[in-house]
Amino acid sequence: MKASLFNRKDEASVNTLRLYSADMVETAKSGHPGMPLGAAPLIYVLWTRFLRHDPTDPGWPDRDRFIMSPGHGSALLYAILHFTGYGLSLDDLKAFRQPHSKTPGHPELGATPGVEATTGPLGQGFGMAVGLALAERHLASTFNRPGYPLFDHHTYALVSDGDVMEGVACEAASMAGSQGLRKLICIYDDNHVTIEGPTELTFTEDVRERFQSYDWQVIVVSKGDDLPSIYQALENAKNDLERPSLIMARTKLGAGSPKEGRPEAHGSPLGPEALEKTREFYGFAGKGPFYVDARVTQNFLDRAAPGTELRRNWDKLFESYGKEYPEERKELVRRLKGELPSDIMSGLGVAFPKDKPVATRAASGVILNALADKMPELIGGSADLAPSNNTNLKDKGSLLPLNPTGRNIHFGIREAAMGAILNGLALSGAFIPYGGTFLVFSDYLRPALRLSALMGLRVIHILTHDSVGVGEDGPTHQPVEHLASLRAIPRLLLLRPADAYETLALYPLALAWEGPSAFALSRQNLRILHPDEFPDVLEGPAKGGYVLREAAAGSPEAIIIATGSEVQLALSALEGFSGKDRVRLVSMPSTGLFEAQDKAYRESVLPPSVGKRLVIEAGSPFGWDRYLGPQGRIISVNDFGFSGPAGAIFKELGFSDENVRAVLGELLG
Amino acid sequence: MKASLFNRKDEASVNTLRLYSADMVETAKSGHPGMPLGAAPLIYVLWTRFLRHDPTDPGWPDRDRFIMSPGHGSALLYAILHFTGYGLSLDDLKAFRQPHSKTPGHPELGATPGVEATTGPLGQGFGMAVGLALAERHLASTFNRPGYPLFDHHTYALVSDGDVMEGVACEAASMAGSQGLRKLICIYDDNHVTIEGPTELTFTEDVRERFQSYDWQVIVVSKGDDLPSIYQALENAKNDLERPSLIMARTKLGAGSPKEGRPEAHGSPLGPEALEKTREFYGFAGKGPFYVDARVTQNFLDRAAPGTELRRNWDKLFESYGKEYPEERKELVRRLKGELPSDIMSGLGVAFPKDKPVATRAASGVILNALADKMPELIGGSADLAPSNNTNLKDKGSLLPLNPTGRNIHFGIREAAMGAILNGLALSGAFIPYGGTFLVFSDYLRPALRLSALMGLRVIHILTHDSVGVGEDGPTHQPVEHLASLRAIPRLLLLRPADAYETLALYPLALAWEGPSAFALSRQNLRILHPDEFPDVLEGPAKGGYVLREAAAGSPEAIIIATGSEVQLALSALEGFSGKDRVRLVSMPSTGLFEAQDKAYRESVLPPSVGKRLVIEAGSPFGWDRYLGPQGRIISVNDFGFSGPAGAIFKELGFSDENVRAVLGELLG
Repeated sequence: MKASLFNRKDEASVNTLRLYSADMVETAKSGHPGMPLGAAPLIYVLWTRFLRHDPTDPGWPDRDRFIMSPGHGSALLYAILHFTGYGLSLDDLKAFRQPHSKTPGHPELGATPGVEATTGPLGQGFGMAVGLALAERHLASTFNRPGYPLFDHHTYALVSDGDVMEGVACEAASMAGSQGLRKLICIYDDNHVTIEGPTELTFTEDVRERFQSYDWQVIVVSKGDDLPSIYQALENAKNDLERPSLIMARTKLGAGSPKEGRPEAHGSPLGPEALEKTREFYGFAGKGPFYVDARVTQNFLDRAAPGTELRRNWDKLFESYGKEYPEERKELVRRLKGELPSDIMSGLGVAFPKDKPVATRAASGVILNALADKMPELIGGSADLAPSNNTNLKDKGSLLPLNPTGRNIHFGIREAAMGAILNGLALSGAFIPYGGTFLVFSDYLRPALRLSALMGLRVIHILTHDSVGVGEDGPTHQPVEHLASLRAIPRLLLLRPADAYETLALYPLALAWEGPSAFALSRQNLRILHPDEFPDVLEGPAKGGYVLREAAAGSPEAIIIATGSEVQLALSALEGFSGKDRVRLVSMPSTGLFEAQDKAYRESVLPPSVGKRLVIEAGSPFGWDRYLGPQGRIISVNDFGFSGPAGAIFKELGFSDENVRAVLGELLG
Repeated sequence: MKASLFNRKDEASVNTLRLYSADMVETAKSGHPGMPLGAAPLIYVLWTRFLRHDPTDPGWPDRDRFIMSPGHGSALLYAILHFTGYGLSLDDLKAFRQPHSKTPGHPELGATPGVEATTGPLGQGFGMAVGLALAERHLASTFNRPGYPLFDHHTYALVSDGDVMEGVACEAASMAGSQGLRKLICIYDDNHVTIEGPTELTFTEDVRERFQSYDWQVIVVSKGDDLPSIYQALENAKNDLERPSLIMARTKLGAGSPKEGRPEAHGSPLGPEALEKTREFYGFAGKGPFYVDARVTQNFLDRAAPGTELRRNWDKLFESYGKEYPEERKELVRRLKGELPSDIMSGLGVAFPKDKPVATRAASGVILNALADKMPELIGGSADLAPSNNTNLKDKGSLLPLNPTGRNIHFGIREAAMGAILNGLALSGAFIPYGGTFLVFSDYLRPALRLSALMGLRVIHILTHDSVGVGEDGPTHQPVEHLASLRAIPRLLLLRPADAYETLALYPLALAWEGPSAFALSRQNLRILHPDEFPDVLEGPAKGGYVLREAAAGSPEAIIIATGSEVQLALSALEGFSGKDRVRLVSMPSTGLFEAQDKAYRESVLPPSVGKRLVIEAGSPFGWDRYLGPQGRIISVNDFGFSGPAGAIFKELGFSDENVRAVLGELLG
């Protein structure tokens, strides 16, 4: 054991972290002191002896990543960021949990230098850490050259009982084991207490055995406040060259406070009396809030300083690399800046013959493959539905331990983890990841989708089988409320193209969108809206909604608004409709993008004077009233679907030429 | 081993199940032949040698439950239901996957006698099985008496790779182990193949070790088509008196077909040629579709017959029980009928003093406790947030292996499993289960919520901390899009009461609703809308929306529509507003219930002539256009929230008296 590595200065530093955290919570009059009091030693040893980071350059590409998955321990993270020089002032700490401060209640990407991810919903941080570790291995395998270990960093995560219980983390841990992510090290703050009481109430499983079953190395630290033991565990974790590691550190919630080991220590300020008793316990009696010894301050800075040196050396290494491998360097710089190649759409060579209907999922597959040749940062896969989601990249290989540069990720039947891992890949800064599943299973993705929307992460979701058109698989597989539910998520770009060309037109928007986007794509073949016949089909979709087919008679008397597969229904219904010359057809692949247009444009597409409107979408009517107005009609799906051939279902639910014409006829009077 | 238990008739029966399944898929021109071909022996042994069921009375309360968690294997389930006498005709089988048939693509509760749950989304069936097993133990512990083992049945589930990978099942399995659910037996169709290829691509974990870590008995059947081995495994599973059991049966996807062991066997018809080869393999060459030997037909009926005898004996037992324990019998009959006690609300003794603001979550806790005394079928808990969700039932004990009649369930930090387990409890037919978490984490519940909506299961979700009023915990914990997203789910009753009395008024609706309901409840205290002052507060909420405060000047010039915590904002803003006599205030706790009222009522509350409308809801504006009309205004939350004291957040986002008055002033001109 390396007891000599630690001395009283270290103990004082740990205790300072503890009390700073408790003081922040006390000052804010809300927050979570329990976890920081127990987990401070873990964080301290990690940050001062292992973490390869440079507080003066928090964006250093080869820094180790640290994710605090139980985001409610934010005070501890802010405290160590403060002491190690990330530019968080004491005033920032005192503004803990105040509006628009650098120290919000849970860590938020972008709000605070050094915070690598927005965390709080338990389990998500665990999954993101798996994504970050996958990213590191991919980058190292792709860009490293002899003598140039550009990427050689670890991903560390602090995880809590909740992170170990949540299904998303269970899925992610299983996948990390299968992938053999040896540079992933999770430290489990194993404190045996959750909000409702001792974990024995409902969590009696053998966590050690479980992680071993995933093929993780599991290291138990029976005294989670013993710095040398923690050190040794981290050493052992780094030394495993095949497996991810879980360090199970037995800690005490609210350690050293009068509430130690009790659920009450978790989520409220200790209160002045208990806080003072905690100070006494740690030898800080009477020192008052935010007390720090100058030697402690210096100790943190001393421990962080070598990181700056490491980063400078890396900068030099990267410069030399650039001389020897100029193309690779240029490419890497581009990717790290999040810039798209300048010519992604030109010369893509994607075309769809006029007379051959294609499902938008199939079109998406063609486009994705064409883009993948130009954009090595496109990487992704499916939750075991690649053949159905058309997400497979031809000749790009499977991402496996023995093929770490493969670009097809097999997520398994684990949608929840896929969402979180995609977020982790995006957080690495060098990938635009995508993931596929059925639209109906986007329900499993929502917690991760929401986080990527909050973080502004470019993640592309390829959600196929986007309506009752799923057919025989029936209501469990037929999305109904999903388009509406996804449209309701702030900052998420939902795209439902009407055909292959609209899909082509929308891909560059998704790639450029500073946040998650989701394609809703058809299972069934859809008629091609060829640019020869529909000249706006390549430019119009970017505006969210556009006139696909104008009323021949000049100003329209009625407007059909349709999305996705229902656009072709509108077209075919209009074909044989006597009043077709009086009807305008608007294709609306994205209500969100349409809302973002100026009023003049919106009113040019949907003139307020034309109140006779018909919306057609094979999904819930919820949310469409905005475009309907008092005279409007809608053909939609008001209830769950049923099992049967798609054609029969569509017909029964009113998605037929006859019904569209009948409703139009009523509208036109 | 009990080899002698099985003979050629059994083999022929198994093969008949296989080929019937494949024939159904072939006839439907869609479906999943792979799993039935491999898993037929498992189902056969279970149904003919273990399952305690009476096809002539599929509702027998003490029947064993069987859940086919991989619902895509429906053909196999329908085949055995057909042969064992559940009234599924050959024509029904031939109508597989056709509209409104008894044999939809995935099993659907209510569509087919003998189908115990709607399954398809993998993992959910596993979770429901855990709920069913919990229910059985609770019922047995509550109602059994010496000599009267009224409840003594097992819950069996067939589970697939997907069910073992999905997080919801991982959570549920961990909880089943902690609960020691010895009567839960899951048979794992361990076929090593998923849609994207061999499971080794991404699923290399040691499943046996994992389930052992949960404290399950794991039994490996290395030849999953060997009937005596399957028999022995099921015997061993039943003989474990402490733990749930997982039988890992090594099977072959598409066994006996030319596509055996290949992903192609999973999800499409075999095709005439491959199907004929499969027939040959099983000795049915040239027999054509739906061939069955008369001895096989008889064999199935013979095997099912004893179940009827068992059920009859149980009926007699129940009758005698009724003589000795008339009250218990009456109570049980009531619960099994799903009838509420006649007097649930009268004499509930719940009142809230006029001048003491109460959070609706706290009011909910008071009401729930009062109801729980009268309704033993109310059972539930929280995903480790009971103190925050106010879901704890005082003096009702924790549901634990040593306290199997406890009514407080500790779900742990496992929202996904909670949703599925609640569904299982409801499926038992004897409980109205409830579950609590934060509204923002309803995202984790959606897959289960959707299934309960599809099945029409009475499950109550208590979703607290229902807006940015969450405050300092910040945007990861502040719901925004969730009210809209839940309103979009068909058949789900979303309730957002404005105060304690509206909460009281809405509880009976939730209890009587034939489907899931979800309360969105405030973290913060809300002013009491006392019936003395607001006479409609107890009757109005049942209509979804009602006039809480009429415009004093007679017919209103403007209408405020507010929900939940925003009703008190509307009231306080009106107090000091000069035009208050011209404004009507409508409280709208449930848009869904309001929509269900007749037009006359709706227009009496929201007269079309009054176009000056203001909606106030601290959530996404999505979906409110219906009530706004062209002149309407809305105060809502357009983006994610932020961390800070609730008051500061509300103010900044426009939820202040001043802003409400300003907008009203603009509306009134």
